[in-house]
Amino acid sequence: MSDNPSFVLLGIENTKYEQRPVPKAGPGEVIVAIKKTGICGSDAHYLTHGRIGDFVVTGPMVLGHESSGVIHEVGSKVTSVKPGDRVAVEPGATCGSCDACKSGKYNLCPDVVFAATPPYDGTLARYYQVPAHLVYKLPESMSLEDGALIEPLSVGVHSVAKLGQFQASQSVVVFGCGPVGLLCMATAKAIGASRVIGVDIIPERLEFAKKYAATDVYMPAKMREGESRIEYSKRNAQEMMQQLGITDRGPDAIDLVIEASGAEVSIQTGIYVTRTGGTFIQVGMGTPQVVVDIGTIAAKEMTVKGSFRYGPGAYKLGIAFVRDRKIDLKPLVSHRFGFEQAAEAFEVNRKGKGPDGKSVIKVMISGPDVAAEPL
Amino acid sequence: MSDNPSFVLLGIENTKYEQRPVPKAGPGEVIVAIKKTGICGSDAHYLTHGRIGDFVVTGPMVLGHESSGVIHEVGSKVTSVKPGDRVAVEPGATCGSCDACKSGKYNLCPDVVFAATPPYDGTLARYYQVPAHLVYKLPESMSLEDGALIEPLSVGVHSVAKLGQFQASQSVVVFGCGPVGLLCMATAKAIGASRVIGVDIIPERLEFAKKYAATDVYMPAKMREGESRIEYSKRNAQEMMQQLGITDRGPDAIDLVIEASGAEVSIQTGIYVTRTGGTFIQVGMGTPQVVVDIGTIAAKEMTVKGSFRYGPGAYKLGIAFVRDRKIDLKPLVSHRFGFEQAAEAFEVNRKGKGPDGKSVIKVMISGPDVAAEPL
Amino acid sequence: MSDNPSFVLLGIENTKYEQRPVPKAGPGEVIVAIKKTGICGSDAHYLTHGRIGDFVVTGPMVLGHESSGVIHEVGSKVTSVKPGDRVAVEPGATCGSCDACKSGKYNLCPDVVFAATPPYDGTLARYYQVPAHLVYKLPESMSLEDGALIEPLSVGVHSVAKLGQFQASQSVVVFGCGPVGLLCMATAKAIGASRVIGVDIIPERLEFAKKYAATDVYMPAKMREGESRIEYSKRNAQEMMQQLGITDRGPDAIDLVIEASGAEVSIQTGIYVTRTGGTFIQVGMGTPQVVVDIGTIAAKEMTVKGSFRYGPGAYKLGIAFVRDRKIDLKPLVSHRFGFEQAAEAFEVNRKGKGPDGKSVIKVMISGPDVAAEPL
Amino acid sequence: MSDNPSFVLLGIENTKYEQRPVPKAGPGEVIVAIKKTGICGSDAHYLTHGRIGDFVVTGPMVLGHESSGVIHEVGSKVTSVKPGDRVAVEPGATCGSCDACKSGKYNLCPDVVFAATPPYDGTLARYYQVPAHLVYKLPESMSLEDGALIEPLSVGVHSVAKLGQFQASQSVVVFGCGPVGLLCMATAKAIGASRVIGVDIIPERLEFAKKYAATDVYMPAKMREGESRIEYSKRNAQEMMQQLGITDRGPDAIDLVIEASGAEVSIQTGIYVTRTGGTFIQVGMGTPQVVVDIGTIAAKEMTVKGSFRYGPGAYKLGIAFVRDRKIDLKPLVSHRFGFEQAAEAFEVNRKGKGPDGKSVIKVMISGPDVAAEPL
Repeated sequence: MSDNPSFVLLGIENTKYEQRPVPKAGPGEVIVAIKKTGICGSDAHYLTHGRIGDFVVTGPMVLGHESSGVIHEVGSKVTSVKPGDRVAVEPGATCGSCDACKSGKYNLCPDVVFAATPPYDGTLARYYQVPAHLVYKLPESMSLEDGALIEPLSVGVHSVAKLGQFQASQSVVVFGCGPVGLLCMATAKAIGASRVIGVDIIPERLEFAKKYAATDVYMPAKMREGESRIEYSKRNAQEMMQQLGITDRGPDAIDLVIEASGAEVSIQTGIYVTRTGGTFIQVGMGTPQVVVDIGTIAAKEMTVKGSFRYGPGAYKLGIAFVRDRKIDLKPLVSHRFGFEQAAEAFEVNRKGKGPDGKSVIKVMISGPDVAAEPL
Repeated sequence: MSDNPSFVLLGIENTKYEQRPVPKAGPGEVIVAIKKTGICGSDAHYLTHGRIGDFVVTGPMVLGHESSGVIHEVGSKVTSVKPGDRVAVEPGATCGSCDACKSGKYNLCPDVVFAATPPYDGTLARYYQVPAHLVYKLPESMSLEDGALIEPLSVGVHSVAKLGQFQASQSVVVFGCGPVGLLCMATAKAIGASRVIGVDIIPERLEFAKKYAATDVYMPAKMREGESRIEYSKRNAQEMMQQLGITDRGPDAIDLVIEASGAEVSIQTGIYVTRTGGTFIQVGMGTPQVVVDIGTIAAKEMTVKGSFRYGPGAYKLGIAFVRDRKIDLKPLVSHRFGFEQAAEAFEVNRKGKGPDGKSVIKVMISGPDVAAEPL
Repeated sequence: MSDNPSFVLLGIENTKYEQRPVPKAGPGEVIVAIKKTGICGSDAHYLTHGRIGDFVVTGPMVLGHESSGVIHEVGSKVTSVKPGDRVAVEPGATCGSCDACKSGKYNLCPDVVFAATPPYDGTLARYYQVPAHLVYKLPESMSLEDGALIEPLSVGVHSVAKLGQFQASQSVVVFGCGPVGLLCMATAKAIGASRVIGVDIIPERLEFAKKYAATDVYMPAKMREGESRIEYSKRNAQEMMQQLGITDRGPDAIDLVIEASGAEVSIQTGIYVTRTGGTFIQVGMGTPQVVVDIGTIAAKEMTVKGSFRYGPGAYKLGIAFVRDRKIDLKPLVSHRFGFEQAAEAFEVNRKGKGPDGKSVIKVMISGPDVAAEPL
Repeated sequence: MSDNPSFVLLGIENTKYEQRPVPKAGPGEVIVAIKKTGICGSDAHYLTHGRIGDFVVTGPMVLGHESSGVIHEVGSKVTSVKPGDRVAVEPGATCGSCDACKSGKYNLCPDVVFAATPPYDGTLARYYQVPAHLVYKLPESMSLEDGALIEPLSVGVHSVAKLGQFQASQSVVVFGCGPVGLLCMATAKAIGASRVIGVDIIPERLEFAKKYAATDVYMPAKMREGESRIEYSKRNAQEMMQQLGITDRGPDAIDLVIEASGAEVSIQTGIYVTRTGGTFIQVGMGTPQVVVDIGTIAAKEMTVKGSFRYGPGAYKLGIAFVRDRKIDLKPLVSHRFGFEQAAEAFEVNRKGKGPDGKSVIKVMISGPDVAAEPL
């Protein structure tokens, strides 16, 4: 049977719908009928540039990897879910047998099959085939849109809880108030942050962050003529610290900085505002090569970590936070489209504004059999 | 009584001997009769530049902080040592009551009194006053020169063992084969490294490293005309990995990189040669602002840490390594001077060569009452 | 001057008020005018038995160590607080220079001067002398009674957050619903526990626990005739797991068990209900020698830790939890007495019921200058 | 084809040779031609008792799980090894997808297929089928007997290095000088222990331990009439500490205790000799229910951990230690038998002495095609 309509990237700025074969579940696998898929920056980037770093789109590839759905079929050995169960889908099937997988860092598996990372197909289709241990049943209180958003939430959980070892009553600054930054803030708040400071250069995003999960927001200073970026960042950090009452040590210091913008000046500023002995996590991908003040990293004996996707426990903790009402994902979905409007959805995502003039936070595309409404 | 001859820095390139009062031990303190003091890069830097970063020499300051000696007097409450005991001296008296001190990171104490860091006097004198818990009895098998070298060894121990969490049978690359780099290699070897790779641009240093503690050494490629530093570093890393059979994963990957040169290209190269999921420690202070590939740090989910001095346990572990013959400090002392030759000793340290034409590794200055011979 | 009335233990069941000299603050010390002091089990135990393990009361000793007050005098070097500041008092002055203190485990300092642990005087007096870094300013929203309760709360914070490494959305079982058990539950709840199960054999205590911080409570099964304690405990664990839907693995498993009763059957049962790979913390002191199932500890690869007092950060985190309204200490104070009624307060504490018939949770004694009302 | 002779346990004290089908390698699997297999206590226990705890032999089961061999066949997807490669075999095939497997604790996988743990067949056969990621190529310098002994060595590596977090220059006491105890000592020595103390009640074993890996050995005191076990253990600990100069704190204290005997008095004594703040690991399985001094565990804030098999990295580190000549496995093989003498081999293992009167340490059985000589 081949009734599996799929939204396929053929090349840069070139997509079409294709009928793909309906997959059959292997013994330990399930087939998920996809209901909701959020657009991620990486999907959009493949559409526009055909590549992200070393990952190059060389053949047709189904887009989409932030998805939820309903179990359509289960393999012969599957007992954890049954047809009809509503699930969030973790889109990376790792090998389970390499050193990274065995040692609790499966996000570093070199042989991962990750949805919509070339050459592997994504989830913007009627059906998606995945090992059973990568689907997570949704509590009744959670919608399928919530379920689709567990994927980006897991990035926040991994960065803040796992790598950042963030604890109740600590303080965090998050650079970048896009979806990932917002979900890092939400995670910090769920853990019990004393202070969550959101930084962005777009006033609307700061307003949203303030209403959503930040206790404070900060709009960076303007760069002065003749000022180098690093000079600017140093001054910006000083102004930010003064304005917000941030110190380098003690109860007003910043335990954790999450950099979710990828901008060089944010990285630089972030290193300056981190407390002595504190931690800085790079989540955002932007300019890969940036000037950093390694002298400051050494003198403050800081820890700087890169964050890559998410590892063991991230999906579970994300779902628990939403179930326990510590995180509300609903306000994040700004625009909704039907499956047949996928190209339009990507266009709105690119523009950052809908036809209604409303700013984009997260664009959600429904599965082929579903209305473009919250589920 | 004032018979306490001291070698005092008055200003840039300006030193003299002064008689200082003989200190009296407070209840929990000891007076150490200093016997051996190594010259450290920071002493030399204050002599030449009058400052290191924010630490500025504004008044007369006794130089020296890598010292050993013999207990001369003990305070009323001291029971851990007695006059005549041979000891290594830890030169930083921390407050014991701030958050950093209480939480096991006393090297980050903001109120530390550190020898020969302005405005505090150092150890190049007949007597040095210090809290009793900062002197460590030397096992009989250790010389007083060994004792003086525990200070720089502690930098290696802190970087490799504590921050780097280096384990037996792991692999390390150390950039910079000066004293600190050599002692990082020695620490890694003492812990049971499978492979210790030393990198430097001076052939003599590589030869010494190979004989001393490295299993392999590497002389970086030459920079090509028109090549940016980061381009160069990427190519250098590739050539180094190919030449030495280094991979990004598996048994031939590098678990830990210690950057002890402070050179931008070493920092850059170091990040490229670290394994996926590996750790990079910045020990050397050099150019503070450098271009780094943050994209690589993120994609490999690396941990980058700054290292600042040394914390709890470093002196003890350093002494244990020497006592247990896992580290031999003797080969490091290349030049010896009497107390009255201190200026000459600094001059040889600056030139990097003795009057004998021999390259400087570590210059040792004896105390006022001691011959310039190993003790 | 000697106007420092103090409540002194002379021997078993033998107390009186004495005038003690008014202490003078040393350079880094403060004198606290004590306003509120909670009675702890250890104070009561010294009164009744004259000893706790190796700590034996051999001379007159002022009782009390759970205290708050107002700064009366500050030493010459003190800048962190000033006269009039309301503070919680940490009652253990550690040496700051032993291995335990330096390595972030000051609760294991062998030379600690701990209030009301022989031979050191406690806080049930008008004035108490203490190093300035051991007093913590109370936020305006916190009462002095709250301040006194930070001491037992710190035991909970240390056990649950530090040793237990408890994380948001995990599950905990607490054996023993006395003050320490309740504060362990409150800490777990503040961190964001999914489930907090309180266990006790007294129905009133379970009711209180349920209203206070537990999501579930459990009254253990009765022991059967002829059943050994360990047989009973195994059965009790099975019944408890069945009744509450607890499993050994997965989302319904218990990540952390806090044993705050000291009872052998609780220790045994606790080991059986802990998840595979989980953690068990012994907080309560009871029968020292107990039968445990070490085979189960091995087969489940459990971690069992003893908890002793509290270490770095416990006071700060406790205060932050109360300030941020994640923990409410007010319901815990069941009985209040004036300073001159201290003996009566201890009597009520011993009986476990007030003259009003109300069960004791925490008995609070006011300072000499304060009414027996909440402050 | 069915030419796969296998040594099968039919019931208590009842074994025979059977021809089993020759297995075929699945895509990710290999078939190992088994060359050497050590007898482990668990094999012997199944033979004598038919069960270990909840694991009961209910049908015929091939014995043996400490094995090495030569790759006979590789599956279609296997690239890591090729026919003819000499390998050590890790005998537990875990699921790779449960929480335990994903989080870096695969030894806690509930669905493991472990050789010679009912109902799964073991390795005492001509061929053994196993996932390719569970075979480890042997360096040239290592014999096939060395390879077979990597299994019990991994138990030591897991207990000492992973759970015990043992570091260079620390001190360890190991209770029980059987094969596992000896390999724990060897691991501690390989890591760079300052002191390794072996404890046993059999003089010959202490002698062997002293020659093999211990720096000191201790023969426990005799129990006195009327003394309870716990009284005895307390006294025994005191005598041991006095005789060997062990203290509770400082450089002469014991950082880690490994209990590899399973005897109640060893467990008790071990808890008393552990330093304040130290770690005790239970490796041996013996009497499951024992009296322990939980008061001491609490007062010293100890960590007690159970150890179960071995997890990620244990095989690799074990092989590296042998390759790097930090551990010599050869002295451990005391008796060798051909495949057809398997029953006799078990009998010698049971008696603890060979026909030559030599004490048993490790009995090695060759594969069907191999002489009973070192390989």
